[in-house]
Amino acid sequence: MTDRTVFFISDGTGITAETFGNAILAQFSMAPRHVRLPFTDTVDKAHQAVRQINHTAELEGKRPIVFTTLVNMEVLKVITENCKGMLLDMFGTFVNPLEAELGIKSNHRIGRFSDVSKSQAYTDRIEAINFSLEHDDGQTHRDLGQADVILVGVSRSGKTPTTLYLAMQYGLKAANYPLIPEDFERRQLPPALVEHRKKIFGLSIQPERLSEIRNERRPNSKYASLENCRMEVNEAEAMMRRSGIRWLSSTTKSIEEIATTILQEIRPERLVY
Amino acid sequence: MTDRTVFFISDGTGITAETFGNAILAQFSMAPRHVRLPFTDTVDKAHQAVRQINHTAELEGKRPIVFTTLVNMEVLKVITENCKGMLLDMFGTFVNPLEAELGIKSNHRIGRFSDVSKSQAYTDRIEAINFSLEHDDGQTHRDLGQADVILVGVSRSGKTPTTLYLAMQYGLKAANYPLIPEDFERRQLPPALVEHRKKIFGLSIQPERLSEIRNERRPNSKYASLENCRMEVNEAEAMMRRSGIRWLSSTTKSIEEIATTILQEIRPERLVY
Repeated sequence: MTDRTVFFISDGTGITAETFGNAILAQFSMAPRHVRLPFTDTVDKAHQAVRQINHTAELEGKRPIVFTTLVNMEVLKVITENCKGMLLDMFGTFVNPLEAELGIKSNHRIGRFSDVSKSQAYTDRIEAINFSLEHDDGQTHRDLGQADVILVGVSRSGKTPTTLYLAMQYGLKAANYPLIPEDFERRQLPPALVEHRKKIFGLSIQPERLSEIRNERRPNSKYASLENCRMEVNEAEAMMRRSGIRWLSSTTKSIEEIATTILQEIRPERLVY
Repeated sequence: MTDRTVFFISDGTGITAETFGNAILAQFSMAPRHVRLPFTDTVDKAHQAVRQINHTAELEGKRPIVFTTLVNMEVLKVITENCKGMLLDMFGTFVNPLEAELGIKSNHRIGRFSDVSKSQAYTDRIEAINFSLEHDDGQTHRDLGQADVILVGVSRSGKTPTTLYLAMQYGLKAANYPLIPEDFERRQLPPALVEHRKKIFGLSIQPERLSEIRNERRPNSKYASLENCRMEVNEAEAMMRRSGIRWLSSTTKSIEEIATTILQEIRPERLVY
């Protein structure tokens, strides 16, 4: 348990610095204090950052870890020359060898997330989020042909967070449909879905875990009872097997792992890369 | 415009590798082909990856760029020793110097997103997503005391994607309330919000852009007319000024930039770091 302070400095939002820095820090058993310094885009702000870092170094008697994704060379220089922290320059480390390999200069463009608001990719992403919200929980069959992915599964198997993640992270239009007792009686997929079978992916879940989750919502209901959860999960899995639908169990998986597996299986056309 | 292939290899989802790799690649004017190789967690899969990379190198006559976030040393060794791509080992590059600095060994834990499904942070995040969905568009006043952030603004100013992003990325419970003509007539914030004023943040938007967005939804409606948009935006901004609510214009900003600014201003208690 090292008590250290970790700084994330960026000329943009700092989200890249923090995402990557957290992945690195997860490799160590420590719980450092995080300080975000986004929008550090002037020499003045760089000097302020240096003062804050050096003050922390003095107080704690240990040098802070400083992750930077600065692309403005003037700003970076102020940090490099004056900061008493351990500097991990995430861009410089990889951009310089890439310049040599590719034979082109980097453009020092600030921030993956700035100036994007008018780009097609960004507009598509917002549209995908809206689509996924409108097509949450089988609310509408309209424009289902536009969906990149359609998730099915019993209520509370993890469909909604996963569809929103697919929309937010990859700009995919992801609908989701609950499988309900009526479908089990008919022993068939919801009719609106049949023609879109190629885009369907199923989520299942352990009945015990499902019962726990449902009990938090509606304690002691038939809906949440282990017996009912067992029945629904059995029926849903049997239906997916009969219909030739690929599926996974969400029980011990994060939405990131579920989403990654879905992309590998469905390989949506719109995800060009 | 270099045509190259870029590989992202990870023993987990590869999301960290791709997020960071994309940020690096955004520094170059090129549109490379992306190949994701997630869940590369055995020596066999590593050999498969090597074959795919070396085959691509031969076909294209240029060595592929290979971003890795592998923590399994055996798997990494197969790649390092056999792959003909340009290897950018994102973890090794920073983890080794950090081990020296911190005086502790890294734990080679695979994947930030695996084994998380039972962690408190993960449960909180899913709960935050559900909270934000239930409190979208002023649907309910219930449990508003639990909200970390409450966004207000006219319809289509960007509130919904921003609240979902805050929930998904930071596990924050983010509600959002539309400001509507009825509020403007009363010249007051929606009554349910008054006691939560410290947590409120406003979004505004240029009337011209708002009219464009609304016209896509309801073409030629009064709702979408420039005149009506001008009126609503004026009224909303006046109300936020009167009520002492901090706000920003979302017109040219991405949801990431909006979210980062909100965090800087509101500094939610639950976001411990």
